[in-house]
Amino acid sequence: MARVLVAGGAGFVGSYLVERLLDRQDVAELVVVDNLWTGRRQNLAHLHDPRLTVMIADIETARLRGTFDEVYHLASPASPLWYMAEPLRTISANVVGGLRLLEVLREGGLFACTSTSEVYGEALVTPQPESYRGSVDCTGPRASYDESKRCLEATLFEARRVRGTRVKVARLFNVFGPRTRPDDGRAVSNFIAQALRGRPITVYGTGTQTRSWGYVDDIADALERYFWGDAVDYPGPLNIGNDREVSVLEVARYVQSLFQGSRIEFLPPVPQDPTNRRPDLTLAGQVLPGWQCRVSYEEGVRRTVRWFQAELAEAQAVAAD
Amino acid sequence: MARVLVAGGAGFVGSYLVERLLDRQDVAELVVVDNLWTGRRQNLAHLHDPRLTVMIADIETARLRGTFDEVYHLASPASPLWYMAEPLRTISANVVGGLRLLEVLREGGLFACTSTSEVYGEALVTPQPESYRGSVDCTGPRASYDESKRCLEATLFEARRVRGTRVKVARLFNVFGPRTRPDDGRAVSNFIAQALRGRPITVYGTGTQTRSWGYVDDIADALERYFWGDAVDYPGPLNIGNDREVSVLEVARYVQSLFQGSRIEFLPPVPQDPTNRRPDLTLAGQVLPGWQCRVSYEEGVRRTVRWFQAELAEAQAVAAD
Repeated sequence: MARVLVAGGAGFVGSYLVERLLDRQDVAELVVVDNLWTGRRQNLAHLHDPRLTVMIADIETARLRGTFDEVYHLASPASPLWYMAEPLRTISANVVGGLRLLEVLREGGLFACTSTSEVYGEALVTPQPESYRGSVDCTGPRASYDESKRCLEATLFEARRVRGTRVKVARLFNVFGPRTRPDDGRAVSNFIAQALRGRPITVYGTGTQTRSWGYVDDIADALERYFWGDAVDYPGPLNIGNDREVSVLEVARYVQSLFQGSRIEFLPPVPQDPTNRRPDLTLAGQVLPGWQCRVSYEEGVRRTVRWFQAELAEAQAVAAD
Repeated sequence: MARVLVAGGAGFVGSYLVERLLDRQDVAELVVVDNLWTGRRQNLAHLHDPRLTVMIADIETARLRGTFDEVYHLASPASPLWYMAEPLRTISANVVGGLRLLEVLREGGLFACTSTSEVYGEALVTPQPESYRGSVDCTGPRASYDESKRCLEATLFEARRVRGTRVKVARLFNVFGPRTRPDDGRAVSNFIAQALRGRPITVYGTGTQTRSWGYVDDIADALERYFWGDAVDYPGPLNIGNDREVSVLEVARYVQSLFQGSRIEFLPPVPQDPTNRRPDLTLAGQVLPGWQCRVSYEEGVRRTVRWFQAELAEAQAVAAD
């Protein structure tokens, strides 16, 4: 029976991981630590499981009892809007959080974390294989996220090298779907939130920059398989994402097509916005036999729109009470 | 009058910085924090200045009073032998240390640090300009140093971006000279220590890998000018080093030429040893008018040999007592 900790478990991706961990019969106790910086209490509100404890605390300083058999480190903002506003807090969450979590991992336990495609920076290679060392400006305005994720990866692989710690590092590519904050600030959710409120859909720059949009259910499938499911045991780093590359403008146009009368507005480009992003999934195919993305981005966007509509309706109902 | 802190001030480069800081009339108090991991008490033993306090403590947890006008962060091992043996401690010193030092910097104060040419990794560009984003394997055996220095740079530049912190980041290239530990493990000191003891001079791999050896007095000159001297005010990152590129084998042969009967032994290459390293000093020429390296590597090696000989004689005299 396992004692499990999820740092950032009330976050967007974290909450899906928590759901799937609770599906496991061998999980005796699941402690979520989340400071609700970008995570939200309501992401876990539907879970009524006596094995689950939610601690509202920073992972760097949370008062934890004992050690854990499995530690999942997802405590970090992932949207530029959020990490650029509080970069030092972002670095601390990833790196100081990572070092702290190593201390509460029992010997022989598993330390898994979600890293990011941003470790590749302004990629000069496409698609990006895990062996690509990246092109990150370590003094640039996105460095808090990119470099602290790189340093977190370094921390885990060094722990593996000198202590034999069992680690699994997933590099996630642009995840979207229900439970993204309406004020998250990344393209898909931004476009939907704007269109739903009758505001212009804002595209930064020309919109020709590409992303590979992974629908959250598909990504959670991969994480479940990789971290504790039927995957080949492999420390990573492992790209996880959808390798269908779509431009930001294409997404904006698709969202526009779902909302009659909506319009697209172009704003100046944001600093150091990567021009392209697409995972090389060769390794994922070997490590995660049978896994593939099943939800097209169009279907994913439609599901996300329905979720945002329900959220908005609920918020308005509460406001009208 | 300035209150100054030097983290890692008992280290090789740190001790030269401390000497030069004490030459300043406007320094009222100088606190050195050093845990003597790779630093040595004797590096500061010749300094008898009432303004100087040496605290033997980790920078992450040292009990510091008040805030400082200037903070210099040099608390990190710099030799692969040392950081590869304790990678998590290395990451902590650089990143947790950096975050901690930001807390004790007074508003408007200066935060300077020594970063490294290792942020360029296995450089695909030569010489390396500061704008080169590097090619570091963030999961490799050298990642603790390379990535924690990158993350420290990110921390400082993010502090500058969001808080307006005044920062100066120097990227040092292969410094050598007196006060290197005999067991430091890097090429020049290693060769000298081996030859002095009548042991074979060990070259890893073919020895064709190149470095740019900066003699410590020249490097300290640059740091003094850059951090508080006559430099143009510039946050960096700024390459500081000697741009004469010399192969490791050439250095081994030069050391061999100074010790009759010594011989060179080839050992297997060390993992991910960079094949080349040479600073582009264009920016240094603009920021540090009048600065240049004056000590050739041959002269530097001879001076270092004399220092090592004196050290060894002293150690033997003590042992004979």
